[in-house]
Amino acid sequence: MSTMRPRIIVFLLGFGIGLAGDACHVASGTTAYDWDGVPTLWNSAIWFPFAVGLAVLGAAEVGSRLDLPSRPRTPVDVVIGSALILALYGFTATLRGHDATVSVVLCGAMAVAVWAWWDPTFRSLAVAMVAAILGPLAEMGVVASGAAHYASDSDGLGGVAPWLPCLYFAAGAVASGVIDAVQVRRVSTGEVVAGRE
Amino acid sequence: MSTMRPRIIVFLLGFGIGLAGDACHVASGTTAYDWDGVPTLWNSAIWFPFAVGLAVLGAAEVGSRLDLPSRPRTPVDVVIGSALILALYGFTATLRGHDATVSVVLCGAMAVAVWAWWDPTFRSLAVAMVAAILGPLAEMGVVASGAAHYASDSDGLGGVAPWLPCLYFAAGAVASGVIDAVQVRRVSTGEVVAGRE
Amino acid sequence: MSTMRPRIIVFLLGFGIGLAGDACHVASGTTAYDWDGVPTLWNSAIWFPFAVGLAVLGAAEVGSRLDLPSRPRTPVDVVIGSALILALYGFTATLRGHDATVSVVLCGAMAVAVWAWWDPTFRSLAVAMVAAILGPLAEMGVVASGAAHYASDSDGLGGVAPWLPCLYFAAGAVASGVIDAVQVRRVSTGEVVAGRE
Repeated sequence: MSTMRPRIIVFLLGFGIGLAGDACHVASGTTAYDWDGVPTLWNSAIWFPFAVGLAVLGAAEVGSRLDLPSRPRTPVDVVIGSALILALYGFTATLRGHDATVSVVLCGAMAVAVWAWWDPTFRSLAVAMVAAILGPLAEMGVVASGAAHYASDSDGLGGVAPWLPCLYFAAGAVASGVIDAVQVRRVSTGEVVAGRE
Repeated sequence: MSTMRPRIIVFLLGFGIGLAGDACHVASGTTAYDWDGVPTLWNSAIWFPFAVGLAVLGAAEVGSRLDLPSRPRTPVDVVIGSALILALYGFTATLRGHDATVSVVLCGAMAVAVWAWWDPTFRSLAVAMVAAILGPLAEMGVVASGAAHYASDSDGLGGVAPWLPCLYFAAGAVASGVIDAVQVRRVSTGEVVAGRE
Repeated sequence: MSTMRPRIIVFLLGFGIGLAGDACHVASGTTAYDWDGVPTLWNSAIWFPFAVGLAVLGAAEVGSRLDLPSRPRTPVDVVIGSALILALYGFTATLRGHDATVSVVLCGAMAVAVWAWWDPTFRSLAVAMVAAILGPLAEMGVVASGAAHYASDSDGLGGVAPWLPCLYFAAGAVASGVIDAVQVRRVSTGEVVAGRE
């Protein structure tokens, strides 16, 4: 398999999850875009899903260079992992009005469960942690630029939501092994073979 | 094992999940029954759990003829799958007041995760998709007949809830392989043997 | 490995989950402490996390004597199980205002899924059931003593929350096998070896 195809799949996964998840955040009023004249895709400013797709691909590249995942993860695992991340993304859109302690503990626990299920190694933990730091920092930059903002009941972490690092943590964990995982082929029931290029 | 016993188990599973899930919907005010004089079981009109049990059995029959599940699923998997479906059912009862985008993306992502965990094949996807279409259509018929209705904040899909296809999708996916799964016997740790009649 | 080390780990797990979960309940107003002058740790009266840690250790001891878990569970499973229990704990803090039918069915279904995933045997079911009875009884005692109370919308089960047995059930199920599970070592990919003392 070429080295491009898995990366295109990973970008599109990130693009799609970012688009659908952000639609939830905008629909719930958790976030809002503030610049006029920016084209909109579903509920998002057009640049947002591209940014998420590139960020996921970046985390996936780092993970691939760290030889992640540490054990074979299959395309089916990618479907489950992506669905869990999108479910967590959508779930955060239901948390307005809940105390930050509740939302952070709840989302943090779910994120840890996703990481431990996907690839419980220190390397994937490192990718997840870096995502949990850089992602919210990038969103703080977006907020500071005036392009978007979080609702006043959901902006307690430097202008972004307190649970945001948990969402990035879970996404970073799965992203860390996804380039290899989308290439694995199931050769017979219960047996998998890695298709690392 | 006779061919009747697994079907009775599957019917009773559908009956029980329908009864307990519907109790949540009625308790939350998501749905209400409108015909007087119909006997009630827990919170449901008496016919409802029977209809769900028969619908689950129907989907299970179709799946069985499609040789599903594609890999052995055990009675323990049936317990987990049934619990996840009931949890999703109950969770939808907490979604009143949330935007349809949020509830559909969230429930849809959870439904896809359940499908991919249970039996990630096109055949089970087909059963799930048909369930996601026929189930809500049948409920629209119930609503049109005046026997029941959804709350005005949860009736955006032709009189039924927008997330309803997601719930039927997840239920249809698990139902597709359940006749075989309830017959599988664990013969030794980690090894399963199919008891397909 | 000594017999003390796994027990210390188990106590600390219970301590940490109790502390973080209770912080959610206090933050959401689901519970409140009523005695003045008791030192506080995070949001809890200081004795609470110790009580939870000891209770988890007690359930774990009973499970260990019943030769649980029935199949090898690894430290990674412990991380997943602990994260799921804490997620359920935190989730219950979002249930204020929801009908008891909804909260009990939803939490009960999630608890059964956790049990069936962790160790679907009658012995672990027994430990979980005993935890589901003794835990809420102990909290009723705390409430009766005047040391703490549940919010008036969450005290329908003899002064405690109706969903409380479900949370104890899930915690008891995982606790039942945790002393052995924290000692299992992964010797090679996909292979585990039990380190029962």
